[in-house]
Amino acid sequence: MKDLHYHISIKLYKDERVFGPGIYQLLSLVEQTGSLRAAAMKMEMSYNKAWGIVSMVEKNSGITMLQKQSGGVHGGGAVLTPQAKQLISDYRKYIEEVNAFAKERFDAYFADFREEQP
Amino acid sequence: MKDLHYHISIKLYKDERVFGPGIYQLLSLVEQTGSLRAAAMKMEMSYNKAWGIVSMVEKNSGITMLQKQSGGVHGGGAVLTPQAKQLISDYRKYIEEVNAFAKERFDAYFADFREEQP
Repeated sequence: MKDLHYHISIKLYKDERVFGPGIYQLLSLVEQTGSLRAAAMKMEMSYNKAWGIVSMVEKNSGITMLQKQSGGVHGGGAVLTPQAKQLISDYRKYIEEVNAFAKERFDAYFADFREEQP
Repeated sequence: MKDLHYHISIKLYKDERVFGPGIYQLLSLVEQTGSLRAAAMKMEMSYNKAWGIVSMVEKNSGITMLQKQSGGVHGGGAVLTPQAKQLISDYRKYIEEVNAFAKERFDAYFADFREEQP
């Protein structure tokens, strides 16, 4: 039997969900590839689905996430707006800090529990 | 528009999910009421569903969670085993600590973001 481990999920909300692991991964891939289509492919997601996620996040947050490039966002490449870059950077650092803390406290609370349950 | 806020979810796994917010709430209510049936009612859940959740958690964790009372678990009351009490106590403390940390860091990272998005 595997050791006990934890999974943590943190999502940001206003009235509706604004930001979570899925949109974070998608926008990070747009940042790396310069293309929403390429980002969607890497996530094994249809382009339409990816576009729908970005639209929903933009609507719920009130923040434009993607800047149109030559050919428009649908045609040419896509780059993140400064606000989107700030948001994914803050989210990344935030998640990393909370995860580091959660891991340390998990080990403190559940190390004994794991040993008792071989 | 509401302020930006976060939601954190922490679940414990071995091979399968062992413990999360739902079973925590259910077992906490068993502890308070002394009855799985009363706990299920408070969660607006059928007794069968509650029993299924407890069984699944017991199977996945390898830990017996409920002790049989007079009349058996199905009939009379139910009390938590010492191991279940330990687990929900550790989980509660763990979640509280991680939440306190996550709240503090959230305020640090996203206070500016909130002000920029009135």
